[in-house]
Amino acid sequence: MKQYLTIDEWSIIEESFNPQTQEISESVFSIGNGYMGGRANFEEQYSGHSLQGSYMAGVYYPDKTRVGWWKNGYPEYFAKVLNSTNWIGINVEIDGVPLDLATCSVTAFRRVLDMKEGTLSRSFTAVLEDGKEVRVESLRIVSMVRQEIGAIRYSIVPVNFSGTITLTPYLDGDIKNKDSNYDEKFWNEVEKNAEPDSGYLTLKTKKLDFHVTTAMAFDILVNGEKLAIPAEAIQREKYVGATADVTVQAGDQVVIYKYAANVTSRNYGLGQLVEAAHSALHSAREAGFALLLSEQAEAWKAKWKESDISIEGDVSAQQAIRFNIFQLNQTYTGEDDRLNIGPKGFTGEKYGGSTYWDTEAYCVPFYLSTADASIARNLLIYRYKHLDKAKENARKLGFTKGALYPMVTMNGEECHNEWEITFEEIHRNGAIAYAIYNYVNYTGDKAYLGQYGLEVLVEISRFWEERVHYSADKDKYVMLGVTGPNEYENNVNNNWYTNRIASWTMEYTLEALAYLQENETSRYHELLDKLALQVNETEKWTEIIAGMYYPEDAERGIFLQQDGFLDKELIQVKDLPPEHLPLNQKWSWDRILRSCFIKQADVLQGLYFLGDRYDLETKQRNFDFYEPITVHESSLSPCIHAILACELGYKEKAYEMYLRTSRLDLDNYNNDTEDGCHTTSMAGTWMSIVHGFGGLRVQQDRLILNPSNPGHWTSYAFKIMFRGARLNISVTDKQVTVANETGIPAQITIYDKEYTVDGKSSITAEGITVTA
Amino acid sequence: MKQYLTIDEWSIIEESFNPQTQEISESVFSIGNGYMGGRANFEEQYSGHSLQGSYMAGVYYPDKTRVGWWKNGYPEYFAKVLNSTNWIGINVEIDGVPLDLATCSVTAFRRVLDMKEGTLSRSFTAVLEDGKEVRVESLRIVSMVRQEIGAIRYSIVPVNFSGTITLTPYLDGDIKNKDSNYDEKFWNEVEKNAEPDSGYLTLKTKKLDFHVTTAMAFDILVNGEKLAIPAEAIQREKYVGATADVTVQAGDQVVIYKYAANVTSRNYGLGQLVEAAHSALHSAREAGFALLLSEQAEAWKAKWKESDISIEGDVSAQQAIRFNIFQLNQTYTGEDDRLNIGPKGFTGEKYGGSTYWDTEAYCVPFYLSTADASIARNLLIYRYKHLDKAKENARKLGFTKGALYPMVTMNGEECHNEWEITFEEIHRNGAIAYAIYNYVNYTGDKAYLGQYGLEVLVEISRFWEERVHYSADKDKYVMLGVTGPNEYENNVNNNWYTNRIASWTMEYTLEALAYLQENETSRYHELLDKLALQVNETEKWTEIIAGMYYPEDAERGIFLQQDGFLDKELIQVKDLPPEHLPLNQKWSWDRILRSCFIKQADVLQGLYFLGDRYDLETKQRNFDFYEPITVHESSLSPCIHAILACELGYKEKAYEMYLRTSRLDLDNYNNDTEDGCHTTSMAGTWMSIVHGFGGLRVQQDRLILNPSNPGHWTSYAFKIMFRGARLNISVTDKQVTVANETGIPAQITIYDKEYTVDGKSSITAEGITVTA
Repeated sequence: MKQYLTIDEWSIIEESFNPQTQEISESVFSIGNGYMGGRANFEEQYSGHSLQGSYMAGVYYPDKTRVGWWKNGYPEYFAKVLNSTNWIGINVEIDGVPLDLATCSVTAFRRVLDMKEGTLSRSFTAVLEDGKEVRVESLRIVSMVRQEIGAIRYSIVPVNFSGTITLTPYLDGDIKNKDSNYDEKFWNEVEKNAEPDSGYLTLKTKKLDFHVTTAMAFDILVNGEKLAIPAEAIQREKYVGATADVTVQAGDQVVIYKYAANVTSRNYGLGQLVEAAHSALHSAREAGFALLLSEQAEAWKAKWKESDISIEGDVSAQQAIRFNIFQLNQTYTGEDDRLNIGPKGFTGEKYGGSTYWDTEAYCVPFYLSTADASIARNLLIYRYKHLDKAKENARKLGFTKGALYPMVTMNGEECHNEWEITFEEIHRNGAIAYAIYNYVNYTGDKAYLGQYGLEVLVEISRFWEERVHYSADKDKYVMLGVTGPNEYENNVNNNWYTNRIASWTMEYTLEALAYLQENETSRYHELLDKLALQVNETEKWTEIIAGMYYPEDAERGIFLQQDGFLDKELIQVKDLPPEHLPLNQKWSWDRILRSCFIKQADVLQGLYFLGDRYDLETKQRNFDFYEPITVHESSLSPCIHAILACELGYKEKAYEMYLRTSRLDLDNYNNDTEDGCHTTSMAGTWMSIVHGFGGLRVQQDRLILNPSNPGHWTSYAFKIMFRGARLNISVTDKQVTVANETGIPAQITIYDKEYTVDGKSSITAEGITVTA
Repeated sequence: MKQYLTIDEWSIIEESFNPQTQEISESVFSIGNGYMGGRANFEEQYSGHSLQGSYMAGVYYPDKTRVGWWKNGYPEYFAKVLNSTNWIGINVEIDGVPLDLATCSVTAFRRVLDMKEGTLSRSFTAVLEDGKEVRVESLRIVSMVRQEIGAIRYSIVPVNFSGTITLTPYLDGDIKNKDSNYDEKFWNEVEKNAEPDSGYLTLKTKKLDFHVTTAMAFDILVNGEKLAIPAEAIQREKYVGATADVTVQAGDQVVIYKYAANVTSRNYGLGQLVEAAHSALHSAREAGFALLLSEQAEAWKAKWKESDISIEGDVSAQQAIRFNIFQLNQTYTGEDDRLNIGPKGFTGEKYGGSTYWDTEAYCVPFYLSTADASIARNLLIYRYKHLDKAKENARKLGFTKGALYPMVTMNGEECHNEWEITFEEIHRNGAIAYAIYNYVNYTGDKAYLGQYGLEVLVEISRFWEERVHYSADKDKYVMLGVTGPNEYENNVNNNWYTNRIASWTMEYTLEALAYLQENETSRYHELLDKLALQVNETEKWTEIIAGMYYPEDAERGIFLQQDGFLDKELIQVKDLPPEHLPLNQKWSWDRILRSCFIKQADVLQGLYFLGDRYDLETKQRNFDFYEPITVHESSLSPCIHAILACELGYKEKAYEMYLRTSRLDLDNYNNDTEDGCHTTSMAGTWMSIVHGFGGLRVQQDRLILNPSNPGHWTSYAFKIMFRGARLNISVTDKQVTVANETGIPAQITIYDKEYTVDGKSSITAEGITVTA
């Protein structure tokens, strides 16, 4: 943990310029709007270490697979998140010398991500090698209102000299991906034009033919007066810009407003791109920077109204949870059902792809509770649309029926290439089924089953049916050769979690079938036909559910992560010399594999998902066994432990896990934030509070709350959408108040006591000790 | 199986030109001499599919590792077998039109590998597009006597025209490896010179600075008269040659003799390379092609005298075994103890590296029995010299002591990069220990233990000691996360073979220590000091030997390949639809892993190695269980099954396995001979006859024979070196004759009856039915 950012309730603040942490800050201060976004790179030239990143959601590159040794079944490509035209660039020269923070003396540096209003600002004083001093302030937004628009105000004051300041706003498409398998560039130029105050550039990807047009326009003011002399247009391969020499006296203020529009062939025909970009650009420039800013503040106000969590008495925890919510909201807005939530959002390229099981296991609950039900529903429909591809994927691996969803995908096709993950980490299929249950259970939208859900459930159940087999030796159904959520084990037999989620899927599928048979008979028969579902299939599922093998240790009363787990040397993390951690950087892979150490919640993930089926004692025994041997080297791990710790009343552990998940990127816990933020796990942070400390569950159409307070928080409050009602739930150490902001009443159970919270009113559960 | 070669006792013969099998033939017809060698590429230009390959033993390239996802502990490079200067090239033009079999009509094509005399010849009639017809004959050797020398006689007769034949003998260093991770070329030019009748070229590798100088000289004769007009020297980047226009009448014979010398910086100082090449070249040219040929025939005669196996009554089997012996003898001669036996010898690049456990498990027995003991000893000392690197390798993986030999190496460093192999296929360590036992047992050279053997044994035992751990659950020592010889299982627990060979290693190490303590006391104490061997180490080994866990199925009376093996669906290979085979080309990797199908002998490998410790019933039960589920998709597998089948009296199975191993490349069983021959497994073919049908073992300083006859062989005979005596053992269906060619008597047991075979005499064991 290397904390270098200032603690603040609503902002992320960096108060000095440090080249060592520049790439971490570039990740943390990223801004986006669900449609596009980018890292907090500097506008002006910077020759120090930097990872340039500007991303358009849904625009990717199928980079040729790179492996050492080919395995049958590997995909031909790995989909790369694509670094796109740099639209933020404004180069600055002071009397011919480039302004470059890597070569200046920098003071009074301050970078602020204002999460309340959705802006990124930066200010600093730079002294160049020749002694000339400038004061610079920049302010940047990616508009939440006009999704194609980004805008910058960049101001320079010459402090101690008079001379010429040269400004070169530009668009640069001659960029590359750091994550390129064979060090190739991925873009070709299509067309461009540069004018004295504007320009545009259209690029297309070398494969798949994605076209992106970026257009820019700018205005330069000196002491508030528009610059008299026009700039000079420049263009070269994949680049347009304009250069203006501004004659200044010491103390003058030079300000440039740069507007950029990014449009893609995902939304427009190829012939309309340039016009669409210009239309968006023109309208933004007409509106002006001040209006864009106020629109932005309004839009974020609305977002916070839906999804804010406030914590009194712990600024660090407060900052962290807002940071997580802010990043989630600027990564995915749910408006485009072709999109999903990439593991790094718009903050980096690493891991490629856009969709992992993270979406279903971690993000769906966040969007379910903080946004209209249509958002989570779009995430589900995204997988429904990929069902045919998932069936193809199962065929490719030799299955005669059923669907196996990919581990990593952009368009439904698998693009990951480690056999132990790609072919064996099949529990992902279970999470996709579980998300359907979760959505229906939370929203009550049972119609979803007949519309989309059942088809996915049946195909996944068919996959499980073929993937398990009957072991004569055990007289049980077994599942061999899998990798569970804990990726620090590969190719194991009978991973408890995978067996459990597989059998649960079949159970829920049968339940969904029964529901439709009874309630939507004609749709039921239509689906039976469409799916050609045979009676012997559902009978087989029933047989497998009854006969599934679950490894366990009866003596300890725990479920075993997999067959043979107890053969391991059972050492606890606390007994490891600290220099051995993190294991994934210090130990060779085989040593990790044969050790007992667990990367992320595995058995415990199952006990969280299926929490209503296991009693507290079972959860406790398993938690007590697994938590001490879990290293949490996946960002998806601590939140699940936090939630279970809350349920078990392990307050200290819960708070430790909460901080670890919520400040993962702010404090660079896993020493890898420079690659980008752990965006999907941020939803897990939200879950730690709402499902953890808040104890929120939904059972039989009622909202259940069992809030607790980590102890030193004066109070905390979170907002929940539940069946049309928006509830503001606040918890002190003595009472729980639920205020209904809408007109729709909500049924709620707090500590086993049932309440109805009428519209526009509130209830308080008192007489309890929340910190107990 | 696609048999297209003519069956013959002493030759491999191809009787028509087929572009489809050209790359397979290039592998099969390869020639070499232990120092260098190459594929049977054509001398003249060929624009069809071809894998160019000319290799210098010990000259390799550390190509930058290519992996999809980096695992801690992976090596930085993978050592590539290096395609070197093409010295065989002689381009031919007929009145300005290139002779290129891909563009001609070819008749009377015949390619012959004469294994008796060690020559590669080729003849054909080609009709060019313009109707001109030429008759071509070529004859090529890589000299077994002058290791740096290769020579070619290439003759052309214009059949139906008069005109100009242009000959361009050349050296081309502008070659590339097919097996290059990033498609780079690996050589730079150092110097060159071209003269009208000769030329040379020195290249160096881009890494490691290997220098290779190749020099050539040639003579052109027309109807036996030396060509009057000199050729014209040509040179360009990495290329030297000379072009001669020869005016011919129909029926004239144009012959070019090309001599080439290849010398490397492994044997000479950089300043001496050119001179050394010229000296070897000059002497070969002076000797002349006819003398080189007769030297070659003599050298091969001597090789065959040591190692021939004859089979009467089965020409296909006869051809196959001679092919295997021929390839082995031209791959490794044992003269240079820095060399080893690459998996493809000089027949291809694939798999890289030069040393696998194949050497110890398969090749050592061949060289032990067919050559002077010093040859096998050199193979052992090769590993002794790598002991420090093997200790470093163990440290790199986190072991505090002991040695882990690499899976694949050129210089002692690991260069393979699949975690399940590199880090987990550690049974290789056991084979290295076993080879020491095998050598000492066969030769009686116990002094080797004190000189070299013990140090290796102790360090390997130390590794095993740290790699196993005590399982409280089993109250046994277990070994988790390994890959056994059967690579169709990865990351398994308690692989029976690995546990067994580990415990055997510790046992043999203790035995070697006891031997030295008693017989070489001062060396014993010297080694204790050098190794800093502690009493608690040897005590721990004793404890592990006694407490090692071996998975077994008591009901079936078999050893289990690994924990959980019986959970698999037990299907037999014969019940698989034929279109599913070979599995490694038809099934996805995960499906292979979770199936019961075995790539190569695993439990059975252990029963072969430690054959004297298990009774016939145990071997039979295990063979009966494992053979039907073994797919033999490793070339190392069928020979072990053949040997055990012989021991068990399963004649048909033994013969089936023998043919499969011996004709693997000739009949392209595994559909991959185009990449090169399976050189190391060829030693296994020899073992199938000598250890299999011959039943040869060495126990308590006696040679044991239990010969059997597959049934339809009239007789077979093999030669054995044993403790100084050379024995010629022949087996009919009624008797076994052992003739001692040397003056040294041999102690021998045939069917449990003891004989002494005096020098220069023979004994016959009669009155038995060998075919029983």
